[in-house]
Amino acid sequence: MTKTYTAAMIVIGNEILSGRTQDKNIAYIAKELNELGIRLREVRVVADVKDEIIFAINELKRKHDYIFTTGGIGPTHDDITSDAVAAACQVDLEQNKEAVACLEAYYSARSEQLNEARLKMAEIPKGAELIPNSISSAPGYRIENIFVLAGIPNIMQVMFQALKSKLQGGDVVKANELTYYLPESKVAKHLSDVQDAYPNVEIGSYPFKDDNGYGTNVVLRSSHLAALEQATEAIRQKLD
Amino acid sequence: MTKTYTAAMIVIGNEILSGRTQDKNIAYIAKELNELGIRLREVRVVADVKDEIIFAINELKRKHDYIFTTGGIGPTHDDITSDAVAAACQVDLEQNKEAVACLEAYYSARSEQLNEARLKMAEIPKGAELIPNSISSAPGYRIENIFVLAGIPNIMQVMFQALKSKLQGGDVVKANELTYYLPESKVAKHLSDVQDAYPNVEIGSYPFKDDNGYGTNVVLRSSHLAALEQATEAIRQKLD
Repeated sequence: MTKTYTAAMIVIGNEILSGRTQDKNIAYIAKELNELGIRLREVRVVADVKDEIIFAINELKRKHDYIFTTGGIGPTHDDITSDAVAAACQVDLEQNKEAVACLEAYYSARSEQLNEARLKMAEIPKGAELIPNSISSAPGYRIENIFVLAGIPNIMQVMFQALKSKLQGGDVVKANELTYYLPESKVAKHLSDVQDAYPNVEIGSYPFKDDNGYGTNVVLRSSHLAALEQATEAIRQKLD
Repeated sequence: MTKTYTAAMIVIGNEILSGRTQDKNIAYIAKELNELGIRLREVRVVADVKDEIIFAINELKRKHDYIFTTGGIGPTHDDITSDAVAAACQVDLEQNKEAVACLEAYYSARSEQLNEARLKMAEIPKGAELIPNSISSAPGYRIENIFVLAGIPNIMQVMFQALKSKLQGGDVVKANELTYYLPESKVAKHLSDVQDAYPNVEIGSYPFKDDNGYGTNVVLRSSHLAALEQATEAIRQKLD
């Protein structure tokens, strides 16, 4: 048995909880982790409230191999992620020299001053390792098993690409997808029988409606590739 | 001081955690709750694993006035929400007569049999009150402060519309939004000063990039309407 690596994600942002913004980071991180053999097992969307962020970090960092946070590391008063991460890890925030150098290089190239708000983005928990931001310089960072990333999707993505070589994963889960224009209630029995026969394969059933009517997408997922193909074939023989 | 009503949402679904499906229910429920004077305070996306659903329900139902779950109430083997809700509420599942009648009426009108898979959708925790589903008949339900809804967005929405008159809310939070083509780091000081002056107004700062360059959306939210207008005016005077 190889180890199963799991991750959780903490989306920090009142803008998601108010319905103003549609999150785009969960699906990106989920897919990237899949490819690395790491399973995203839980996501929490929490408010910009320090104690609630701390609670989520403390609860999740013990349960999972990796925690990813998105959002709340900008220069404004409502960016409180680093405060919360430092408190959860019981370390102080400090002005990180390497982060200041990144910001200095970026702003001086644009003939801009490194004002107080910008310097706030260099206040990083002691002992953290920076994650470069090739777009706008203000870095993310890793401390313990927590990866602290920006909330803006394109910046989060360059940070993720910069850190992913450091993640250790297990067996990669592969997926097969089958589509039937049958309601779930007509495929349920077959799927259940196949699920019982292949406990190593996770069989998901997702109903949909499109211009052709109601249907069911069946998604089979497993790191056991032979079992995955056999279970897929067993469903096709019954339902194709 | 009027009471602040809060809610949490539990999104049940491996398909969100695998990145296969982009959730559309969070933003809908968030906006509807806003209009009712209820604040969505936390969202958890959990796997189709009974113990993890039970853990989330137990932790959240004590903290919030209302809990909404989406997903996992269909007819297939991976639909385990009702099992988990019953366990969390320490009641048994039972075949709900009213739910059976809804399903019977729906399927007999379509000359279809009420097979075993379909009857699974009438297995509902004892003591629950049904929430009608005007699209495909299989109902949602309320038990304690937990509202159990479908995952398919259009079905979830008709269920929400059917239940919302039963939700008690507090003061409605209104929002004003201002857009500046200035980076966050140039508006941070002003926003922070206004935030300090108006603690009853929640001021959020959301950077963006579009074809015109980098900018910042400033969102002010409060149930104190006079303070909201004053804080908005204070920002406009400094930044317009």
